[in-house]
Amino acid sequence: MTASQAFVQACADLLGATYVLTDAHDTEPYLVDWRRRYRGSACAVLLPADTEQVAAIVRLACTHGVAIVPQGGNTGLAGGATPDSSGAQAVISLKRLNRIRGVDPHNNTITVEAGVVLAEIQARAEKEQRLFPLSLAAEGSCTIGGNLSTNAGGTGVLRYGNTRELCLGLEVVTAQGEIWDGLRGLRKDNTGYDLRDLFIGAEGTLGIITAAVMKLHPAPVARVTALAGLASPHAALDFLSMAQRHAGPLLTGFELMSDFSMRLVGRHFPQLRYPFGEPHAQTVLLELSDSESDAHARALFEWLMEEALEQGIVENAVVAESLAQSQAFWDLREHIPLAQAEEGLNIKHDIAVPISSIGRFIDETDAIIARAAPGARMVTFGHLGDGNLHYNVQAPEGVDAKRFLAEFQMPINTLVYDQVHRHHGSISAEHGLGQLKVDEAMHYKSPVEVRLMQAIKAALDPHNLMNPGKVVRWNAALDKENLA
Amino acid sequence: MTASQAFVQACADLLGATYVLTDAHDTEPYLVDWRRRYRGSACAVLLPADTEQVAAIVRLACTHGVAIVPQGGNTGLAGGATPDSSGAQAVISLKRLNRIRGVDPHNNTITVEAGVVLAEIQARAEKEQRLFPLSLAAEGSCTIGGNLSTNAGGTGVLRYGNTRELCLGLEVVTAQGEIWDGLRGLRKDNTGYDLRDLFIGAEGTLGIITAAVMKLHPAPVARVTALAGLASPHAALDFLSMAQRHAGPLLTGFELMSDFSMRLVGRHFPQLRYPFGEPHAQTVLLELSDSESDAHARALFEWLMEEALEQGIVENAVVAESLAQSQAFWDLREHIPLAQAEEGLNIKHDIAVPISSIGRFIDETDAIIARAAPGARMVTFGHLGDGNLHYNVQAPEGVDAKRFLAEFQMPINTLVYDQVHRHHGSISAEHGLGQLKVDEAMHYKSPVEVRLMQAIKAALDPHNLMNPGKVVRWNAALDKENLA
Repeated sequence: MTASQAFVQACADLLGATYVLTDAHDTEPYLVDWRRRYRGSACAVLLPADTEQVAAIVRLACTHGVAIVPQGGNTGLAGGATPDSSGAQAVISLKRLNRIRGVDPHNNTITVEAGVVLAEIQARAEKEQRLFPLSLAAEGSCTIGGNLSTNAGGTGVLRYGNTRELCLGLEVVTAQGEIWDGLRGLRKDNTGYDLRDLFIGAEGTLGIITAAVMKLHPAPVARVTALAGLASPHAALDFLSMAQRHAGPLLTGFELMSDFSMRLVGRHFPQLRYPFGEPHAQTVLLELSDSESDAHARALFEWLMEEALEQGIVENAVVAESLAQSQAFWDLREHIPLAQAEEGLNIKHDIAVPISSIGRFIDETDAIIARAAPGARMVTFGHLGDGNLHYNVQAPEGVDAKRFLAEFQMPINTLVYDQVHRHHGSISAEHGLGQLKVDEAMHYKSPVEVRLMQAIKAALDPHNLMNPGKVVRWNAALDKENLA
Repeated sequence: MTASQAFVQACADLLGATYVLTDAHDTEPYLVDWRRRYRGSACAVLLPADTEQVAAIVRLACTHGVAIVPQGGNTGLAGGATPDSSGAQAVISLKRLNRIRGVDPHNNTITVEAGVVLAEIQARAEKEQRLFPLSLAAEGSCTIGGNLSTNAGGTGVLRYGNTRELCLGLEVVTAQGEIWDGLRGLRKDNTGYDLRDLFIGAEGTLGIITAAVMKLHPAPVARVTALAGLASPHAALDFLSMAQRHAGPLLTGFELMSDFSMRLVGRHFPQLRYPFGEPHAQTVLLELSDSESDAHARALFEWLMEEALEQGIVENAVVAESLAQSQAFWDLREHIPLAQAEEGLNIKHDIAVPISSIGRFIDETDAIIARAAPGARMVTFGHLGDGNLHYNVQAPEGVDAKRFLAEFQMPINTLVYDQVHRHHGSISAEHGLGQLKVDEAMHYKSPVEVRLMQAIKAALDPHNLMNPGKVVRWNAALDKENLA
């Protein structure tokens, strides 16, 4: 019996055979990532029922030397939850840890297990007249454990922060199979190292998040959106400053969409109407969330738009007149990735730069790509208020996308990431590193930073059994036992 | 020549003798903490001019095995910046690293060196029509490096978060004397472990913060305060929920002050007038920060106060009619610690519990203390909106404070911290652990959490030379070399 077989047998004794999947048909959905870029293999897919079972599995993994790949809703975009191809790793799915343990409305917190689906948390918060502001395309199937492990971003970051900023406390199973109960619902706690934020964004490489205390916000009484047409990203930046100055914290959304993004949506989803008669180089979607009234938000927007039109910052503007129209504006934004997929394979970048550099970044990088791959079509859109762009590249009109990618994906990635690096930006703003960008991260980070990461990895997971190969390269020189 | 002597000589060669203080008269101000509870000794006080010199000092410290105690404005309340009494440690003052390296208004960031005084950052932000919201009593002399290292709180946390939430990037000298350049001005960056938040709040035990990129906010156009008199902490909680629901993110302050706190202020600062004709069991100070207008904030406040009066949540309310009156309200709040000092020595606790537990916590703990130390007078005030109380105990009227403390300080600390622990709270909400509360922290934290902290300490500072004895007890069993 191999170590893997002995481990799988011990897990079956622990969980019951029903919750240890080994049949190829059963394991299939857990072994391929959402974008179908990665296909792995596993000795088993494990479905523990609670934190104690997760801890027991990790202790078995230590005993048998089996590596563990934690998985939530399997909607990640960087292959972080897909095992390698060896067949020696085990996937541990957190989806049965799906209880909302409690809501504390006076404390504005909700305590949830890792496997709770994001949309369910949003719904529960709403029932309590609260807002859980994390919102992203996969919210119907992604889980909060995955959101935390990748520090997911989304459309609410401008005002409410990333998943990190929405978390007050964690419960984690360590690489030793112990349970750390850090489920604190405190706004202030300065009693030692920030373990919480170390596990957040670590993609399961330091331990497994099993539950969390998340912040709720008072639910705004009104949400109103508007669209504005502008001449350039530079104008959009001026508009952002202006909107922030006048709307302050009421401004909860500021999304940029390039002309070509809008044309793609128009081509593939003609039922979604672009509200302006003429195209604009850039379109911005703004959202206000107001605690007073719909009328108050609308008046603020109207004043802001008039002022921006008068100053020549925007070329055109429209404020949504109904919830339905607000949704229609968001639909334009949310259909860009879908329109891209309809148009064909493309090269995706999830990058961030300082907000003040976005205009220059786009100008320079567009020009560089135009020289390297003439005719390539830039699908630029994203969370301008966070400095986060989905800076994607579509094959030239009429060119076979597969051939284009085979030739240009690597060199264009390098051009874009070099530019990001030059602008002190991030090559993964909200999707994490997973297995997709580990090498790039190790390349662009300073040796000091890489060594700090490796030292932490070796200290907390000395046998490299927690999602190995993701986020950071293992440094054998640091492979000492730090935690007994 | 001892190791310390050799180290001091090498530092003199590096910095010039002017910047290596060894004379007792020169070193005195660096060896006593602000509250004069701790007096240390040092082989030298070092005053490097820049990050490179800090790094070179740490490399010399490694070579000679000398421990380093970093110090900012020396206003800490937990002895975190005071060396031990051995005379073998060196204090490294960051105060010459006092340049504002740059402001990026479009990115809403300011890049500052560790030794910049907090008030200077506030002033510079204001010049750029921005707000740097960190604000606390010591702001005229504390430095941002110290604020970061202790994750300082203050009066703006309700809306803007702790120092941690205001920081985007750091520059740190590691325990190996290398410089980590993590000075990123990004709202989104998911490329590996969150080193930034690990160094924040670590009180110099993992490395020395030398510079930071801090977030700025648009400056509100109006700030208005109000006072309300209430019957109990429970009523204050209901009022908080109500204010958050209606004012949303405009609510930037919500401070609680007990009747006895107000009486102490009245006794020692009679020129500060309590605005209500009769006393109230609790007084709440509210602040609104508005991006629209003074009139808008005032109207919102007046509506809120009327509503709360009508519902019987508050007994009395007054909205400040001028900036001067706003300041007068804040003066009442800010003079509580001063009035306490005038009244005599007292037992201080900086604690946090979930906001929903504050009423119960106060009721229960007041009763417990009344039994243990009859006549003890409770000075309860603090940042109710953050769940953070300064829950202080003054000797009974007419009892000698020194004798009271000698008898009751230890047992009352234990009673209070046991209660905090029972309510899943924090024994140090915003002041850090320093040397004051290390033992308590090790006692109340779970063994799993202590081991995680010790493993990180051993991994990043394997020779235990960075501010040893602060924050976490060294675990000799984990003393391996993790960073070459």
